[in-house]
Amino acid sequence: MMKLYGFFRSGTSHRLRIALALKGLPFENIPVDLRKDEHLGDTFRQINPQALVPALVDDSLVLTQSPALLEWLEETHPTPALLPADPTSRARVRALAAIVGCDIHPVNNRRILNRLRSAFGADDAAVNAWCGQWIADGFDAYVALLADAPANSLYSWGNQPTLADVYLIPQIESARRFAVDLNRWPRLLDIERTCMALPAFSSAAPAKQPDAG
Amino acid sequence: MMKLYGFFRSGTSHRLRIALALKGLPFENIPVDLRKDEHLGDTFRQINPQALVPALVDDSLVLTQSPALLEWLEETHPTPALLPADPTSRARVRALAAIVGCDIHPVNNRRILNRLRSAFGADDAAVNAWCGQWIADGFDAYVALLADAPANSLYSWGNQPTLADVYLIPQIESARRFAVDLNRWPRLLDIERTCMALPAFSSAAPAKQPDAG
Repeated sequence: MMKLYGFFRSGTSHRLRIALALKGLPFENIPVDLRKDEHLGDTFRQINPQALVPALVDDSLVLTQSPALLEWLEETHPTPALLPADPTSRARVRALAAIVGCDIHPVNNRRILNRLRSAFGADDAAVNAWCGQWIADGFDAYVALLADAPANSLYSWGNQPTLADVYLIPQIESARRFAVDLNRWPRLLDIERTCMALPAFSSAAPAKQPDAG
Repeated sequence: MMKLYGFFRSGTSHRLRIALALKGLPFENIPVDLRKDEHLGDTFRQINPQALVPALVDDSLVLTQSPALLEWLEETHPTPALLPADPTSRARVRALAAIVGCDIHPVNNRRILNRLRSAFGADDAAVNAWCGQWIADGFDAYVALLADAPANSLYSWGNQPTLADVYLIPQIESARRFAVDLNRWPRLLDIERTCMALPAFSSAAPAKQPDAG
């Protein structure tokens, strides 16, 4: 069985929990408490010298970086597919994923916000304003790109979940934590409702994890 | 012929110039001057409503987001391949790309630095320190991951250029602009020398572009 080293509130760990569940792959969930700097300790560094979650361990293979992990899962466990079949649609779904994975998430993550506080004296209000800006810009772009999706799509792209949803749902969760008013993007809330009706998404939620608290 | 809308100093546009050249695909290079906010004007918004470079136009198809574009190029123009054949190596190369594409580049780009200046009063020294930190952390992680590469690799992964190099070279260029001392990572400088001996890399350099200045 694969082992997923992650943290309940880490958006990138959350992506992996969703994707593994969608593909029906059982995995052992091993919490690494970022609040206690467990990722920086020797125990975890023996797994991943880069001291980053998530890390996925499959026998002796240790893989890192969630975008690479998700593509690896798609290549090694292709059914059910999380990418459409034709290259143009695949590019659209990957573009949606990249809006979250490159334009939103990296600028709002823990190390960046810690640095805003330490280097520039940012308080909670300033941190929320910072995160709110990039989330809003990104969600606007995400919704704009949905104009190219198949008509009447239930999910971000068509009527099956794709990598786009795998990235979107954790980002929506994170947006709530930063007090972003999501009513500005009703389409995203519709997609969220559709996703959360699936056990793969609902069971992957941060609040459902053993290390939540 | 494909059209690439980009900016000479944009790292994500730079990735596309390299990949298109490595695959031997001629393209029309259409500069969008970010310094003059041309990306926000109506002319470019008619091409890409998201107002972001790069955008790649292939007949009536407009594709955006460099990670999605690079995977699309690999799927639609598979030779020469920029990803290895086996899934584990592909995951490693994509992890290297993600270190640059997610952990380094997004936190150092133009809009983020502008915001650091406007919201927190960051000056040039503070901006360079900010960028220097994420670049150093990322390059350390990149070099650590190279331990898994085939022995005596000339490029990041093996003896042919891959997507890892396509991401790395623009990031090295950007690191110099932020006054990062690259001598800390001699392996990366070796890889850069190997890459720059290829016309696909040397011709893609920002200084060689018509809009450079």
